[in-house]
Amino acid sequence: MSRADRVAARLPGRELDLLLVTDLVNVRYLTGYTGTNGIAVVGARTRRFLTDFRYVEQAKAQVSGFDRETAPRELRLGLADGWPEGPLRVGFEDQHLPVRSLAALRETLPARIELVPAGGLVEEERARKEPGEIAAIRAAAALTDEIYEWVAERGVVGRTERALAIALEHEMRVRGAEPAFAAIVASGEHGAQPHAVPRDVPVAAGVLITLDMGARVDGYCSDCTRTWATGALSDELAALHATVVEAEQAGVAAVRPGPTGREVDAVARDVIEAAGYGERFGHGLGHGVGLEIHEAPRLAQTDEAPLAAGQVVTVEPGIYVPGLGGARVEDLVLVTDAGHEVLSAGTRAPRVVA
Amino acid sequence: MSRADRVAARLPGRELDLLLVTDLVNVRYLTGYTGTNGIAVVGARTRRFLTDFRYVEQAKAQVSGFDRETAPRELRLGLADGWPEGPLRVGFEDQHLPVRSLAALRETLPARIELVPAGGLVEEERARKEPGEIAAIRAAAALTDEIYEWVAERGVVGRTERALAIALEHEMRVRGAEPAFAAIVASGEHGAQPHAVPRDVPVAAGVLITLDMGARVDGYCSDCTRTWATGALSDELAALHATVVEAEQAGVAAVRPGPTGREVDAVARDVIEAAGYGERFGHGLGHGVGLEIHEAPRLAQTDEAPLAAGQVVTVEPGIYVPGLGGARVEDLVLVTDAGHEVLSAGTRAPRVVA
Repeated sequence: MSRADRVAARLPGRELDLLLVTDLVNVRYLTGYTGTNGIAVVGARTRRFLTDFRYVEQAKAQVSGFDRETAPRELRLGLADGWPEGPLRVGFEDQHLPVRSLAALRETLPARIELVPAGGLVEEERARKEPGEIAAIRAAAALTDEIYEWVAERGVVGRTERALAIALEHEMRVRGAEPAFAAIVASGEHGAQPHAVPRDVPVAAGVLITLDMGARVDGYCSDCTRTWATGALSDELAALHATVVEAEQAGVAAVRPGPTGREVDAVARDVIEAAGYGERFGHGLGHGVGLEIHEAPRLAQTDEAPLAAGQVVTVEPGIYVPGLGGARVEDLVLVTDAGHEVLSAGTRAPRVVA
Repeated sequence: MSRADRVAARLPGRELDLLLVTDLVNVRYLTGYTGTNGIAVVGARTRRFLTDFRYVEQAKAQVSGFDRETAPRELRLGLADGWPEGPLRVGFEDQHLPVRSLAALRETLPARIELVPAGGLVEEERARKEPGEIAAIRAAAALTDEIYEWVAERGVVGRTERALAIALEHEMRVRGAEPAFAAIVASGEHGAQPHAVPRDVPVAAGVLITLDMGARVDGYCSDCTRTWATGALSDELAALHATVVEAEQAGVAAVRPGPTGREVDAVARDVIEAAGYGERFGHGLGHGVGLEIHEAPRLAQTDEAPLAAGQVVTVEPGIYVPGLGGARVEDLVLVTDAGHEVLSAGTRAPRVVA
């Protein structure tokens, strides 16, 4: 079954005749279209794809299995007709669609169409990866590993965080991929910011440096974080670093089908709490990765869904101490029937890179 | 008056007590916060800013003039209280806020709060730039001009579109800016796609190559497109190229306070139609540029708002002929009391870069 077939097969369970797909990542997942203005409509016998003048050529090359239509740039205007007969219940992606767009759609669509909140249908399909998707993520993870080694060989002390970020992203592109997100390079006290923006500040010796980057290959992301010591550390920093590595390994080991996101999160969180840093780990353990860098499922204290084979998740505990610094270690893990497979290089011990 | 003061001053005209600002660009405009999870609430005597654990340090450094609050990652949960007394009409950004988020907000907020669609209030403030904003855009435009010269000096024939895009974006970063968007490099027939994605295909001699790039300096974007001939052109391509340059110059000359977006669009469009390419110019003439690469105002056939001093707009006519190629030329123009000032280098004649 095609992806659109699988989504269409889920519609009767929601008492829907059709699904209107407006989120561009979901549109891409279903149709292959990678431009920035497109809508898909999916139902048992419906496969519509709408884009505007600017993307007609691109859609011709990318979109198959759908009826391609050219609409005004405000694509909803192309949805005034073309619908099957009779009263229809049409789902829309309420977690993405802006309030104003829904009002505009309501004005455009025939009155016999009832618009029903139905977000998440495509995302649920996306959470379990197909072999081709896993291959792309695997390639992205391998490339990210290579880039880390490339950075480590050249050294980090004395280079600015921003220069390191620019260099590694350029190298990633030269090797054929795109950065999946803006790389984080945070050294010293700056490492206390989980989402630090690289500064024009040279990396010092004897501190922790956290690098967080990912590659995008064929649209699919990788996500990997390394924290390195840039020389001999204070006891305080060394303990922090070792605790994060230990928590990460424990978290990875807990990944398999069955446990909930909350349960896997707890395995790593327990290690950090036992070391006395419980208050310093203020985010969830991980998240799904695919066409988006953050997608379903999540591994966090609030997630009660069990992990399932075919999911790809990050495991990324961190400790952040304002005024001192921080560490985060992250690997990318495929949930398999047998348990898991670490797609990135894995983390075995604190590492020194000067 | 601060930006928040100016927005607050507009609320009585909409019969609003407060504005809930959820769009991150608008949040940044008002508060200075550049992270990825933040909400602002603005009213006559209210300046609230909410973010989560991950961004507390960053907010401390960036946000002043607002009461900073730390909320759960799902920030709306921080909005359950902290409101002024009595019944309140609170505007929300309906053109951005997803349908589901509005429903969740409705559940969280006290019943005495009425949520009112009020999108565009901050965007209207953003459309007229302050001197500091114009200075940033001017710097971004100047840097983009430098990068174009850097590319031209090194030549384009024989290099792949993708290698050119990677090199110019890297050079932009080395010079201290970030790309405002993914650069377009489209040569030969590929130039018929207005939003072409660079290919791993070498640029040939004797074709047109369109490059479209912008820099981001202090958060503010530039946007500039050049089409070059990579050698002697066929008569057909030369005519197309010359027509676009002529249309662009006519469009730029028409920019001043008073005419509507539609009227300025028509000046350039008339040149293209007179040359017989009317069907091949399928997009609007231009758009505002600021914190976002596309923002208010627009110059297009449907825009009836008059241009005003302080706005920064692109003028970017194009001709796209599938199977042959295309050209687009774009400069960045500040609307001034006296008329306009071209912030990018300007376009005077078709140029050859081999």
